[in-house]
Amino acid sequence: MTHLTKNINIFVPEYRFKKQGNMSDEVHKGLDDVVVAESQLSYIDGENGQLLYCGYSIQDLAEYATFEEVLFLLFEGELPTKEQLDEFTATIREERSLPDDVIETLRSLAAVDAHPMTALRTGVSALEPHDPDQRLDPDRNVALSQGRRILAKMPTILAAYERLRLGKEPLDPHPDLNLAANFLYMLTGEEPDEIGAKSFDQALTLHADHGFNASTFTAVVIASTRANVYSAVTGGIGALSGPLHGGANQDVMEMLIEIDENGMDPIEWIEEARSNGERVPGFGHRVYKVKDPRAEILQERSRELADVGESKWYDYTTTIENYLAEDLGLTENGIAPNVDFYSGSVYYQLGIPADMYTPIFAMSRASGWIAHVLEYQEENRLIRPLSKYTGETDNEFISIEER
Amino acid sequence: MTHLTKNINIFVPEYRFKKQGNMSDEVHKGLDDVVVAESQLSYIDGENGQLLYCGYSIQDLAEYATFEEVLFLLFEGELPTKEQLDEFTATIREERSLPDDVIETLRSLAAVDAHPMTALRTGVSALEPHDPDQRLDPDRNVALSQGRRILAKMPTILAAYERLRLGKEPLDPHPDLNLAANFLYMLTGEEPDEIGAKSFDQALTLHADHGFNASTFTAVVIASTRANVYSAVTGGIGALSGPLHGGANQDVMEMLIEIDENGMDPIEWIEEARSNGERVPGFGHRVYKVKDPRAEILQERSRELADVGESKWYDYTTTIENYLAEDLGLTENGIAPNVDFYSGSVYYQLGIPADMYTPIFAMSRASGWIAHVLEYQEENRLIRPLSKYTGETDNEFISIEER
Repeated sequence: MTHLTKNINIFVPEYRFKKQGNMSDEVHKGLDDVVVAESQLSYIDGENGQLLYCGYSIQDLAEYATFEEVLFLLFEGELPTKEQLDEFTATIREERSLPDDVIETLRSLAAVDAHPMTALRTGVSALEPHDPDQRLDPDRNVALSQGRRILAKMPTILAAYERLRLGKEPLDPHPDLNLAANFLYMLTGEEPDEIGAKSFDQALTLHADHGFNASTFTAVVIASTRANVYSAVTGGIGALSGPLHGGANQDVMEMLIEIDENGMDPIEWIEEARSNGERVPGFGHRVYKVKDPRAEILQERSRELADVGESKWYDYTTTIENYLAEDLGLTENGIAPNVDFYSGSVYYQLGIPADMYTPIFAMSRASGWIAHVLEYQEENRLIRPLSKYTGETDNEFISIEER
Repeated sequence: MTHLTKNINIFVPEYRFKKQGNMSDEVHKGLDDVVVAESQLSYIDGENGQLLYCGYSIQDLAEYATFEEVLFLLFEGELPTKEQLDEFTATIREERSLPDDVIETLRSLAAVDAHPMTALRTGVSALEPHDPDQRLDPDRNVALSQGRRILAKMPTILAAYERLRLGKEPLDPHPDLNLAANFLYMLTGEEPDEIGAKSFDQALTLHADHGFNASTFTAVVIASTRANVYSAVTGGIGALSGPLHGGANQDVMEMLIEIDENGMDPIEWIEEARSNGERVPGFGHRVYKVKDPRAEILQERSRELADVGESKWYDYTTTIENYLAEDLGLTENGIAPNVDFYSGSVYYQLGIPADMYTPIFAMSRASGWIAHVLEYQEENRLIRPLSKYTGETDNEFISIEER
């Protein structure tokens, strides 16, 4: 048999022998109330604003663990020992560089001013033929290796793309820096200071996983066909680019920049947006009814960075939050700042341009996509929902001459 | 506000004000029994082997309409008049050429022997910055224009890639040929004969849409975040690449080639596969309990092409079908040939290599992805299912030194 069907140890498709559940033909349009899988990766308590990865609180992980430890945790289900972490980190460091032809593809995209999300999606897609396991069935070991390679290279793609569009050459990865600090180094050419490196590392940890959000679900649907991790991550990047998902953090920063450039009172801006029926980005979340715990931590980072730099971004965000939450009472009604509300001003204070924020979200969340793919494939089942047909069933074909 | 949130006419996310359905925490792993949307695009009667697009039988559409008419039907809900079709066809013909830098990206991918699905996924992703509407909110008009551009260029990407990996230069599109015939021309450098052009046009029509299959669902999930059509199609290509979805047609042809090269009796091959616990590609479908109506039509084309060319491929497939269906009684148990079982030998007889079959499936099914995105976005709702957490909730963080 061919490589494609090897290891799929079934004579006929598995689904013929499974019992079908017993559901009505009720339409579950957003799947809000549909449980699609069991998972041990992230636990979200939307009522109390609690988020856990593999049972550990996001506060502890952000404070005491590096992003590399979090990656290990998500893939293996437990925190690494020192030795395990060293080995894991070494593997990732070895895989950071990009093939020349992928850099040339990024250069072409920079020449036509592609959005960095487009560069990331295209770059990850173009990496596949360089993967030694590209033609193997994506069992756990293959998926894990591919996932590690992708996670190692995503920061390099993004930093290279940012430099290329500024007319600069990409920098080689710095061998002594961890993933977060190396990204900032490759982007700016300077090693970040401690508070910058720690803030960015925390931001990556905070964005790593969050249940079956739309991009994670996209990655899992793709992988449920036994497509490989490159396909799953490429799809996840696409889903995350939408303004109803990851696109919102760029929107928040652009709102703040617009307020700043026009010398507006933030409240005036909000009122104008409201009267135009527009949405305030970074507020409200399908799952959280209270303030997103990730927003709490990022707000703290934004405040610290403001203390050593410019304070206006932090001031704008807190003014808006107080106005919406308290004066308008939105938080009382379950609409509170989400993770996108404070991430933008943290990144901006680290010198990163606004259209890189969603791609940075992607380079972190890719860890969740991959972890969920690994977990789902332990007992894979093709995801293929139903639709309810509401159209005609007996249209008579009329030839084009007689239409 | 920024381009990203323009036209999203809500102050806070829509989902906060919708009523939640009332479902238990039962896990619906493959979503087999979950209706995710209403649709007027394709109707599938799996018991009777019937498939309709917008109320028209697949048999009539394959026989009497061109693929361009089917595209119009899926996008507009009705068959075009002669004038509408001419205008629609002209728009597609104008959009066929590729930007030079996308050709260079394909050349790089050919140099490292990427799978054509990888080239297609990367190529479509790289087209986005050339789209004049790339930064607009994907409302119906924008999505329709982007969709037409992508559909016009996918055949050119694939034909160019095939030639590049053979060391030849891509050919310009042929101004007088329809989509199907032009693809065969750009691939081989020769205008196809009537039976070849018609067979390929029919194959495209037969693969265009099929309910909420995994790749269509992927595209809709991605677009539900208000990501654009480039993201949706890139994701769809990824999902279709899996061997449990579109990858099966390549597997069928590789099975036939393996039988042929080893001078095996097809039944012997099947028995060997069965005793190894392997699956026979192209048999069984989650929806059809009888022979897939698309397989019936493609079998007829395969027979006609065998009449004017080599008969062995047709003979192998019918021998296998008869053995599995009748001698082993699989069809009685609802396991019958699906669309992948006969498409491979049709394409092979048209001179197309086996690893191009899934990409050809993609260049047809992209029409269904786009049509479903257009339909779903008429009343969009972010798709975000739930997972059931089965892990720990109170792990105590232990610092790495003490692990």
